[in-house]
Amino acid sequence: MPRKIILDLDTGIDDALALAYALGSPELEVIGITGTYGNVAVETGVRNALAILELFGRSDIPVYAGVPHARTRDSFEVLEISEFIHGVNGIGEAVLPEPSVQAAGGNAVDFLVQSVREHGEDLVIVPTGPSTTIAAAIEADDHFAENARIVMMGGALSVPGNVRPWAEANVNQDPEATDLLFRRSRDVTMIGLDVTLQTLLTTEETAQWRELGTAGGDFLADATDYYIRAYETTAPNLGGCGLHDPLAVAVAVDPSLVTCLDINLKVDLVGETRGRTIGDHDRLNDPVKTARVAVAVDVERFLAEFMQRLTSLAERTPARRDLVPQAADR
Amino acid sequence: MPRKIILDLDTGIDDALALAYALGSPELEVIGITGTYGNVAVETGVRNALAILELFGRSDIPVYAGVPHARTRDSFEVLEISEFIHGVNGIGEAVLPEPSVQAAGGNAVDFLVQSVREHGEDLVIVPTGPSTTIAAAIEADDHFAENARIVMMGGALSVPGNVRPWAEANVNQDPEATDLLFRRSRDVTMIGLDVTLQTLLTTEETAQWRELGTAGGDFLADATDYYIRAYETTAPNLGGCGLHDPLAVAVAVDPSLVTCLDINLKVDLVGETRGRTIGDHDRLNDPVKTARVAVAVDVERFLAEFMQRLTSLAERTPARRDLVPQAADR
Repeated sequence: MPRKIILDLDTGIDDALALAYALGSPELEVIGITGTYGNVAVETGVRNALAILELFGRSDIPVYAGVPHARTRDSFEVLEISEFIHGVNGIGEAVLPEPSVQAAGGNAVDFLVQSVREHGEDLVIVPTGPSTTIAAAIEADDHFAENARIVMMGGALSVPGNVRPWAEANVNQDPEATDLLFRRSRDVTMIGLDVTLQTLLTTEETAQWRELGTAGGDFLADATDYYIRAYETTAPNLGGCGLHDPLAVAVAVDPSLVTCLDINLKVDLVGETRGRTIGDHDRLNDPVKTARVAVAVDVERFLAEFMQRLTSLAERTPARRDLVPQAADR
Repeated sequence: MPRKIILDLDTGIDDALALAYALGSPELEVIGITGTYGNVAVETGVRNALAILELFGRSDIPVYAGVPHARTRDSFEVLEISEFIHGVNGIGEAVLPEPSVQAAGGNAVDFLVQSVREHGEDLVIVPTGPSTTIAAAIEADDHFAENARIVMMGGALSVPGNVRPWAEANVNQDPEATDLLFRRSRDVTMIGLDVTLQTLLTTEETAQWRELGTAGGDFLADATDYYIRAYETTAPNLGGCGLHDPLAVAVAVDPSLVTCLDINLKVDLVGETRGRTIGDHDRLNDPVKTARVAVAVDVERFLAEFMQRLTSLAERTPARRDLVPQAADR
């Protein structure tokens, strides 16, 4: 029986790739998506998730809008750097039809809480944006805090951050939320920049998707090429784009892809290093460790899994030529 | 054949324990000590090392004075916090006779460079203070940089620092020196606060030394009790004192005591986090890793080794009663 998964996405290009990874994984049953802010505003992320689900023929999966801004703020505005990396529409200006399905009527926090109550250990939750909605679920229900299994993309322990020398973008959006997650959750795996900047994709791989001649292949290639071009500017020494969010989904499928350090984590909330993810000094010698930080990754095996899953998913979408006459009509 | 070792000490209470660990280890041959500043000034540290060697009947081991201050400074003054932790005399105001042997005439840097040229891989160097003298040896001779095997106490990767939220005391004294060490050395193991704050000693253990009724047992107990009292003030939640420097020597004897992360390290030299030890972003995907950071430690096994080695060393020193008549004379 496939493992149930909920993705908490700020969809985002690498969020789109994470969603595709989940849809392309027979080991997983995506039971829902919750939408957070970050790379984009909640409404844009929800719209992107719905459009991508439709592209891959999975409009049956519900998408719930989550909390729209950080705990200590009363609104959210997309950062300039986020628009540069993900495009104004969040998916690298790739064009997808308006989704025919609306967001689910329910509340994202209720959906998360109910799903853990219903499925317990058979469910894994993969947040790939700020922790705000997850933190709200933790505060809403102790059972969620005690029982949710979380594999999150975010943070940086053994390497510098990406928005400040000590802070990673997701955590930096809402340090209080991630700190609450680290202190209250009993089972969290952190997939941070420590490993995601080692898992790089290049235009060699995206060319394989384009060669498929399908709508799905074109979308993956268009969005990812945009992302790779942004990386050429922001991190020219890397030689590709980091597969941040998909790696978290991959670890939810197969934890053996990474080597983890058992540790009790906190987030610095005050002082110069606000937003830093670091070991909690007060719980250093507590034999119970509530978190696992991935500190090494089997890059080759992950990239092979990533390409196999996304390519086979994209293969099954309608052929590109179905769209060509429309383009000629203009 | 025992492995040769050079200790680069700022002797210091835990440096004294590290030296005792080395002297009590049949697997090690201490071929010399170089003295750095840090817990104390170089001259005080050298004097303490000579006095401790004499106490344990090992005045045959040469002690060389090293570089007396950081690369970017022209002098060194003991910090108030160092005096609080180690006492004004550096060994917790424990009283040892003035050493009858002087410091060796030669230069610490020359001794380090020559020793690596002579012994190569059979030698391990264990610095337990600021990296200044080691960095000078690296700059003096490429052969040293390429071939020295270094197991250093210093830094903090997965936990906060102890003098700043991001900086550990040894590295903070001379960030440029440790950065140079991380960038140029080909074989460095970092034993930082990640593990040394897990290896705690209490007055239960020091009482065992006092019960020996020997001069060596009394010295170890007196100095360490002072250190434990300081920890009760500076880190009351720990419940003991951290065995920082002895753990580095223990790992030089038996690397299996710790679990390490292979990584390329740097030290932040500018900005708010000056003095932070962190992964070097520019060498993240370099398959060659020049450093190993200890991120987990077998606490029980280390403590057992520590007590066994120091106790058997202290047992072999003269009886306390030899000193009692002198005290009565006063």
